[in-house]
Amino acid sequence: MEGLLARTSVTRREYDEWLNEAAALGRALRYPVRPEMVNDSAGIVFGEDQYDAFENGLWSREPYEAMVIFESLNEPAVDGLPAAGAPFAEYSGLCDKLMIVHPGKFCPPHYHQRKTESYEVVLGEMELFYSPKPVQVGEEEVLSFTGMHEGSPWPDGVALPIGREESYAALTSYRRLRVGDPKFVMHRKHLHAFRCPADSDVPLVVREVSTYSHEPTEEAADKAAPLPDWAGLHDNSFVAAAANSGRLRTAIQ
Amino acid sequence: MEGLLARTSVTRREYDEWLNEAAALGRALRYPVRPEMVNDSAGIVFGEDQYDAFENGLWSREPYEAMVIFESLNEPAVDGLPAAGAPFAEYSGLCDKLMIVHPGKFCPPHYHQRKTESYEVVLGEMELFYSPKPVQVGEEEVLSFTGMHEGSPWPDGVALPIGREESYAALTSYRRLRVGDPKFVMHRKHLHAFRCPADSDVPLVVREVSTYSHEPTEEAADKAAPLPDWAGLHDNSFVAAAANSGRLRTAIQ
Amino acid sequence: MEGLLARTSVTRREYDEWLNEAAALGRALRYPVRPEMVNDSAGIVFGEDQYDAFENGLWSREPYEAMVIFESLNEPAVDGLPAAGAPFAEYSGLCDKLMIVHPGKFCPPHYHQRKTESYEVVLGEMELFYSPKPVQVGEEEVLSFTGMHEGSPWPDGVALPIGREESYAALTSYRRLRVGDPKFVMHRKHLHAFRCPADSDVPLVVREVSTYSHEPTEEAADKAAPLPDWAGLHDNSFVAAAANSGRLRTAIQ
Amino acid sequence: MEGLLARTSVTRREYDEWLNEAAALGRALRYPVRPEMVNDSAGIVFGEDQYDAFENGLWSREPYEAMVIFESLNEPAVDGLPAAGAPFAEYSGLCDKLMIVHPGKFCPPHYHQRKTESYEVVLGEMELFYSPKPVQVGEEEVLSFTGMHEGSPWPDGVALPIGREESYAALTSYRRLRVGDPKFVMHRKHLHAFRCPADSDVPLVVREVSTYSHEPTEEAADKAAPLPDWAGLHDNSFVAAAANSGRLRTAIQ
Repeated sequence: MEGLLARTSVTRREYDEWLNEAAALGRALRYPVRPEMVNDSAGIVFGEDQYDAFENGLWSREPYEAMVIFESLNEPAVDGLPAAGAPFAEYSGLCDKLMIVHPGKFCPPHYHQRKTESYEVVLGEMELFYSPKPVQVGEEEVLSFTGMHEGSPWPDGVALPIGREESYAALTSYRRLRVGDPKFVMHRKHLHAFRCPADSDVPLVVREVSTYSHEPTEEAADKAAPLPDWAGLHDNSFVAAAANSGRLRTAIQ
Repeated sequence: MEGLLARTSVTRREYDEWLNEAAALGRALRYPVRPEMVNDSAGIVFGEDQYDAFENGLWSREPYEAMVIFESLNEPAVDGLPAAGAPFAEYSGLCDKLMIVHPGKFCPPHYHQRKTESYEVVLGEMELFYSPKPVQVGEEEVLSFTGMHEGSPWPDGVALPIGREESYAALTSYRRLRVGDPKFVMHRKHLHAFRCPADSDVPLVVREVSTYSHEPTEEAADKAAPLPDWAGLHDNSFVAAAANSGRLRTAIQ
Repeated sequence: MEGLLARTSVTRREYDEWLNEAAALGRALRYPVRPEMVNDSAGIVFGEDQYDAFENGLWSREPYEAMVIFESLNEPAVDGLPAAGAPFAEYSGLCDKLMIVHPGKFCPPHYHQRKTESYEVVLGEMELFYSPKPVQVGEEEVLSFTGMHEGSPWPDGVALPIGREESYAALTSYRRLRVGDPKFVMHRKHLHAFRCPADSDVPLVVREVSTYSHEPTEEAADKAAPLPDWAGLHDNSFVAAAANSGRLRTAIQ
Repeated sequence: MEGLLARTSVTRREYDEWLNEAAALGRALRYPVRPEMVNDSAGIVFGEDQYDAFENGLWSREPYEAMVIFESLNEPAVDGLPAAGAPFAEYSGLCDKLMIVHPGKFCPPHYHQRKTESYEVVLGEMELFYSPKPVQVGEEEVLSFTGMHEGSPWPDGVALPIGREESYAALTSYRRLRVGDPKFVMHRKHLHAFRCPADSDVPLVVREVSTYSHEPTEEAADKAAPLPDWAGLHDNSFVAAAANSGRLRTAIQ
């Protein structure tokens, strides 16, 4: 029956309400949300089948892959780098984001070949799912230093998005992060996903400090690339193919 | 006469009061200040002649070079990097700090060969002084992309630390940063310094998100280096020689 | 045409989204929002004609009379009062509320015979409209001490709720209150209303500290009265009759 | 030996550092601390023997009776009151304060004949000590409604100020209040005291919303009384006589 109601877009009103409330929450938490950061790439629905999230709304506590990202910084940090280091610059840089996820909703399973991330919970609690083993990209030989710690097994009762269950299978480690916890580092090449607990009374709000985000969103389309190789580079590899395309464009009526 | 009072250390009580108040302020502002971040490398007096800052105290509004840094993250981001990129890894990584500066006090002029920084004002206002031209390090050829914008000329009435005036001469650009402003990027190899306005009714509190901080402080002494070349690396070049040594060790009675 | 769409209720989903977002915002601002404070008397639509506010939604910036009140305290302060003071106890007591108003929306014109209020802006800016002259209630002789200062004339461009314009006519004084301003006192018996500026990028959030709120809402229906005379007492006198009844019951489908 | 060091005043520098740090903390927590609220009645040392608190400083965690109060509102709420209620007006009114107490320090045992209070913890945790039975003032007949609940017995290890132990004897009930807890009401005529836990890593910060504070401090000396009977009225009755006088004047060198 939900099939009969299936949607493939979000209305302008639904979208703007989602972003305006999220932006106000970010400002209340002192994040420097600038007007230009509240744009049509900030609210993300991870694939056509996830627009059903808006059928019963963001407070339905149903499992869907949808979230808001306000990006206050995405700095290549290319200036002043030795010229010989250019081929590796895409593994560096600085990105600062505020991520807002409603109860029961997910950021879906993916990894970044280049981007190393860190998380700081600002409001609510973060349920993190990841693989402690890195993905091998081609034949590439990589450095290792601390690696990822093995987390706990998953708790019972985590409702996964319908039709996307398989994409979470390799993320066997679980951690619950809270306000005031040490920063949690997610190394590049590790599969990860997270959600806001379904019974939370606030959206989860997380600050992510990471290396540069290579994401050819509509919003980023007209930005100059700092190096020729960076043009069009997409460093998000989602397990579910539908999530991959959904990341870059939102269908707003 | 102030010479007669000259001090070469801070007492344990003065130091602990300084750090405890700063840590409480950071926690009130929701920064994740962990107990282990409140240590004897967190309160910094930039050289022997700057201990006079404690003669009349941190609220005297007198110009001295002294500040607190609570570091919540200093991640090399070496894991998963292509092995061939190892020589350039020291220009990358992720560091997140909260910096607390009392009215009239300064973070003194310096540059980093490797570290690119960004600033976000959390409380008070930040008076930033910098050189829009990068320092040429040896014969090194470097990349450039956006560069630094020329700032404004200095306003009148900025009282500089006595005996350190010369070290500020090359920092001809000025910017005043406020809460909610866009993130301000300070590219590597640019001289910079900042202060809390002398008439402020709160300490300046700034979040700095940057690439890795190579600083062989006492606190960092027992940490393993991710790559052999990193051991003992010091990436802070202060204009005043006395500030340089002061950064790494605090004389606490 | 809007007439054709006219509504006389809010859906459960619309209502719950409104309250859940407001509660999260209150919590982010550290207000002690307890689960029991998020109830069906907290979201207020001031009369049947104001439900059209939900036709285009709370972020339409259209002028309607609708707001959220989270009440963390409503203490009669009767305990320990000299028995002879019982007849005047209803002018005393302590109430603490967080009020959340979306851009363009209003708290409509009204006065309280008994309640003296004070305002503290927590987020956004508050446009306050009031009468500097008190309402004479019957033949009652009252005390006076500081009175209300005359405010400024209204600025141009304040869009009033359609059909309610007249009810604002006697509120000739205007003040714009901001975060950090001194507490603003609204004495009992003065007509007042307020709104969130229509172009605000955040909902207005105000803490109101006042004497006891005598409001026979559905939520308060089963609370014991501290003194017999207090039972059913309603101390809100709205200028528009429709607002009066709307205050006490919300039509949620 | 501490006797040899005994002090009977606080230096101007110690006092100003105490208040400036407290004011910054209050502002970071969004309390509307206005410059005029940071005055020589805001930092309170409860009697001559309590100045020893400054011998080892506010972070020594030693038990002394000393605290900061920033008062943002003290409104008589006399305007608009029926004239016949004048004799009881002193039991009414509105006061809003931020109270800041360092680890191990106390607000000493006292009661108010007229003032009813409520507490909201903003930072840290509040250890509250009180008597569940009201003080009988003269032959006065008083109203009662909810009364005070019996609290828990005291936990072990609460270090009391030396020489003041007896003054705490009647406060047999204990409650530990935390951020987000419901407002706690302290009815008039009940003995109460509180402290910041000695091992806290932040000062305790509490917002108190109460009826009018009748306190003839130096700061309040030049304010007009709303009614003749209010002139010079002192509604704080401290158990220790020394605390009583200390409340009104601070000895600053």
